[in-house]
Order: sequence, then C-alpha cells, then structure tokens
Amino acid sequence: MSLESIKYKRGALEILDQLLLPIQTRYVKVQGVEDGWKVINRMQVRGAPAIAIVGCLSLAVELLKNEYTDKKDMRQEIEGKLNYLVSARPTAVNIKLAADELINLANNLCADENVTANDFKEMFIKNIENMLIKDIEDNKEIGKYGCEAILNGLEGDGLVRILTHCNTGSLATAGYGTALGVIRALHTNKRLEHVYCTETRPYNQGARLTAYELVHEKIPGTLIVDSMVSALMHARNISAVVVGADRVAANGDTANKIGTYQIAIVAKHHNVPFYVAAPLTSIDMSLTSGDRIKIEERPDREMTHIGEHRIAAPGISCWNPAFDVTPASLITGIITEKGVFRPDKLKEIVPH
Amino acid sequence: MSLESIKYKRGALEILDQLLLPIQTRYVKVQGVEDGWKVINRMQVRGAPAIAIVGCLSLAVELLKNEYTDKKDMRQEIEGKLNYLVSARPTAVNIKLAADELINLANNLCADENVTANDFKEMFIKNIENMLIKDIEDNKEIGKYGCEAILNGLEGDGLVRILTHCNTGSLATAGYGTALGVIRALHTNKRLEHVYCTETRPYNQGARLTAYELVHEKIPGTLIVDSMVSALMHARNISAVVVGADRVAANGDTANKIGTYQIAIVAKHHNVPFYVAAPLTSIDMSLTSGDRIKIEERPDREMTHIGEHRIAAPGISCWNPAFDVTPASLITGIITEKGVFRPDKLKEIVPH
Repeated sequence: MSLESIKYKRGALEILDQLLLPIQTRYVKVQGVEDGWKVINRMQVRGAPAIAIVGCLSLAVELLKNEYTDKKDMRQEIEGKLNYLVSARPTAVNIKLAADELINLANNLCADENVTANDFKEMFIKNIENMLIKDIEDNKEIGKYGCEAILNGLEGDGLVRILTHCNTGSLATAGYGTALGVIRALHTNKRLEHVYCTETRPYNQGARLTAYELVHEKIPGTLIVDSMVSALMHARNISAVVVGADRVAANGDTANKIGTYQIAIVAKHHNVPFYVAAPLTSIDMSLTSGDRIKIEERPDREMTHIGEHRIAAPGISCWNPAFDVTPASLITGIITEKGVFRPDKLKEIVPH
Repeated sequence: MSLESIKYKRGALEILDQLLLPIQTRYVKVQGVEDGWKVINRMQVRGAPAIAIVGCLSLAVELLKNEYTDKKDMRQEIEGKLNYLVSARPTAVNIKLAADELINLANNLCADENVTANDFKEMFIKNIENMLIKDIEDNKEIGKYGCEAILNGLEGDGLVRILTHCNTGSLATAGYGTALGVIRALHTNKRLEHVYCTETRPYNQGARLTAYELVHEKIPGTLIVDSMVSALMHARNISAVVVGADRVAANGDTANKIGTYQIAIVAKHHNVPFYVAAPLTSIDMSLTSGDRIKIEERPDREMTHIGEHRIAAPGISCWNPAFDVTPASLITGIITEKGVFRPDKLKEIVPH
C-alpha cells in the first residue's frame, strides 16, 4: 500500500519526517501552529498540497485544545495564525489559497448569529478535515485523466516509459500523488514499462523520496542524476514527462522545483510530451504570468553539504533558487482533477 | 599561482588525490604502471589530458627502474603496458592516441640499428617528459584563442559571464586547463565579470574541483547545481558556455562529462554561444561521428552514496553513464591550440 505521510485523528497530527528518509522512518508530532510552521519551513513536510494540509491541520489541532467563548477572538486568532503559516514557504500557493478560503469561512461563521462559538469551532475543524479526504479523491482523478492523456497520444507497443522530477507522490500530498499519482495509475493499469526519476538536487527529493516510494510499491524504476535527462531521451524512447507544480499562473506558466524548466526545454528538443499534474488549487488566476511568481532562494548550505558532510570547496559562493518557471509554450497539457487542459485554456475552466 | 596536480622529477611521480579534495590535499606516489592504472581507474586523477600524461609518466618511472639489455624485450614490454594503461578509462581518447604514438616511437627506436638499449630508454623517457611541457604550452594557446573568440562575439559592457561544467583546470591537465584555461585567460585580461560552475553530479567535479580552483585563484565564481542552468540563463545574461571534451569525432560531435549535451540544448534555446575547448589530441579522426563513441557506464554507488553516506533510497536501480555526446550542430566552435574552428571544419585542419 502507499505510504502514509500524514497521520491524523482529531486532536492528533503526526507527519513522516522527510529529512530523515530514506535512512530512517520517523514520525514527528505536530501539536499546534508553531510546530506546523516549523515542519513546513524545515521541509520535514514538503510538496505544495501536503504543506497546505499539514498547515491547516496544525491549526485544527490547536483550536481543539483551546476554549473559546467569544467568536470574534476566535476569528481573529484564526486569521493571524493562518497568515503566519503561509509565511513558512512563500512559493507554495495551495496553503495561501486554503488560508484565504478558511478566513472567509471564519468571517461568515463569525457573522452568522445562529452559530455558537462551539458550532464555529466544530464546523471550522470539520472543514479542515475534509481537505484531507478531498485531496486524495482529487489525486485519483488526476491519475485517471493523466493516464488517459498519455495513453491517447501513444504509438507503439502500448507500454510507456515516463520521466518524473522531484517528489509528487504520497509524500508530497495527502496520500496518492499528482505526477506520481499519474504514474501509479499507469502502473495499476499495467501500462507502465518503466519510470525514471531524477535525483533532484540540491535536496535530493527524487533520490530520497520518489525512489523510496517506487521501491516501497514495487513500481519498476531507475534513478538518474539531473544532468542525464538529455542522454536518457536520446538513449531510451521516453513516452512522456510528468511533473508537479507549486504554482500555475493564469496563462499556464508553471513554477515548480528547480530543474523543471530545463527538462521542459530538453523534452521539446526530443519531441517528448511534457505534462504538469496539479490540482486546481495550485492554479493562481490572480497571477497573469510566471514572471510574477516570487522565487524563494534557499541557503547555500543545502548545496555545499549533505548532512554534516561538506561536498563543495570551502569559500565558494552559491546561487540556490528553489524553483524555476516553465513557460506555458513548453507544456503539452496541465492534468487536473477536472481533466487535462492546454495551458492557454486554463482561463476558460478555472474560476477567477 | 595555479595548483600543481602532477609533481614529476625524473624517476619520481606524485599526483594530487582528487577524490579527497576539497577537504584534504594529499599527494599519492605513483611508482609504476600498476599504480598508474589504479589512480586513473579510481579517478584519483581525471580529465582526459591529465590521464594521458599520468599514464605515460607512470611508464617512464617504471622503465627507469629496470635494466634492459635487449631492445625487443623493452619494445614488447612498452606495448603491453601502454595497452594496459589505456584500459583504465575507455572513453578518454588522449591516452589512446598518446599510447599509439609511443608504440610507434618504440617500434622505430627498436628497428634503428644505431640506437642502443640505453639510448632507446633515454629517448623514450625524454619523449614522455616532453608531453608534460607541451600540454601546458598548448593550454595557454587554447586560453588565448578562446578568450579572443568569446570577446569577438561580445555585445555590451565588455565584461563576460561564463558558464562551465565539470573540471577542466589545473586539476584535469598538466597545469593550466582547457575550458578553465579560457576562463583563466579572460580573468587575467580583466574581461571576466563572473564564472558559474555546475556541481557536476554524480562525481561533483565542479563543486569539489572547479570551485576549489576558483577559490584558490580568487576568480569570482558561483556554484550552481546541474539543474539550474536554464534558470541561470533566464535570470543572468550569460555570455558563453565553455566546456572541455573527452573525445571529439571527425564531424565535431563531442563526448564530454554527462550533462554537457543538456547544457548545449539549453544554451541553443537561450541563444548563448557554446564552445568546446580541447587540444588537438582529443580529436579522433578515426571516428566519423559521435554515435561510434563508446560510453563508459560507472557503478551505481557513485550516485547512491557520498563517501560512506547513503543518499538514495535502498533498493533503487541506477543508470550511470559517465559521458554523453553533444552533436556538432549545437557547438558554436571548438577551441584548440591552433585556433577556434567550426565543428564542420575539423576535417580540413586535423591530420587524418
């Protein structure tokens, strides 16, 4: 069965510490918003959908512990804590959208005279808990639509060879995966010959996490380093690339893990279809294009060290952007829970 | 001053152990052909020109220790040992070409009745020693021509921003460098604004060795991971890419460190000139195209571990080609000690 990266029962939240994988499998207790911010900021949990869910669940856990007599106090606390949680990773849009929706909900519940403080709390927590359920449902739809799109475009033996980047599986979502969900669906349907995953420097999410999931679920896979993508496309007949997204702009430009842009260029050069798999919550219609996406720069140490082991020459400076932006023109289709869309069609299907 | 990676006095050879850099600076004694094969195969010395020189010098050291009365025995021993040395790294052509030339020389000296066994030994060793001197001279010419070519194509402020891959500096050659020699020449001429070096997974020659040389010589440089090349070209105005070569075919197709092909595609996409810097000995006119270059595949462990530290999920399989082939169509020019040539002009200038 697929990995359980988020364990939640009302009042109790634990997440699988992804910094320790693949060597150690250890869960971290998240007892409130402060813990939630820390596990997101330290990247013990990562992947835009998982960040949103863990952030919001950390608030649900905290609210449950407290007693509220005044709805206004509760509303104000919710808004402040959600804004704080959003600040832990500025590029991931899902938690921002989730926070905006929850703040709206809190405003409405607060204003509704028929809702008591206890009702407010109960309904608010329930709403967060539903996010966990909906994420898995949405991912399964993404898997289904992505699988269809890739197989529709297929020539040849009916089996596909897929390349993916970073980790977008059970470890990045509530439990099935976006791009890795598509791969999982192809495998379940016995149409996957092989999946290649990049190691995804500097944080090695591919080597540590995607490879871990592939081995765990016995999906036939091979690890390559990020610079082997072109050689791979030249040597093996890759059917499609599928990657995730941290944020998709209204015109289809996509911010995703550093290196995605490069893979898209190389895929175009080799005539390999390039798909982005993302729930609609990753699409930010308030951004007209990718130029407006703020790119987080991370510390040098992520590049110069592996754990305590120094791998780069002392004294060298580093440039460490966590994401890059792939222009819509390089993207074959965006796979969502409502179907697969050409990037220029997003405006027609996503509510503004 | 530039690093001394090969220390040689007649009868005594030491090489800087590049596997221990940048943490430890330790020289390894090479007392004969057996040691020479080992340091090449283990990649304690690397870079096609350095491999050729160290391999041949290890033979010079071994020959000096032995007494020969029969020229034929000596000739036979030389041929056998050179073939053995060539087998240590099959992709690097320089040592193969050097070995062929030395075997020819040995045949001629053996057949010449005016040459005694002692003369044979002395002339043969002297010939190998001259390779060391010539390599540095050739590299300085490469630096000069490369610098001119890049500055000729320049628009704007007169300063250049260069990207390089892997290590092609003092640590890869006898002492000045090919691609890094070009960068060194630009720096000496005060025309270099900045150099970016890729870390060059899986062996991290960029992070360990190029970064070490840049820091050592105070050349302004920044390290990026291999997947950041596209983002870098989008964000910064890169003037040119300069890389080395392990082997250039007659049509200009170039085998070089894995990842080079990808950088060339990305450079084309961003309209950035892409140069290969290599001595004429790296050009193998017996190969009509890059398809015929045998690509060495290295052990999984290079990808799954950093030293003793496991970085990839246990159980995942790996694909680890050490090189890829960049087609001539993506190469702006090949910088040699005789000038800079378009890849399709090589046939006119290199002796067959």
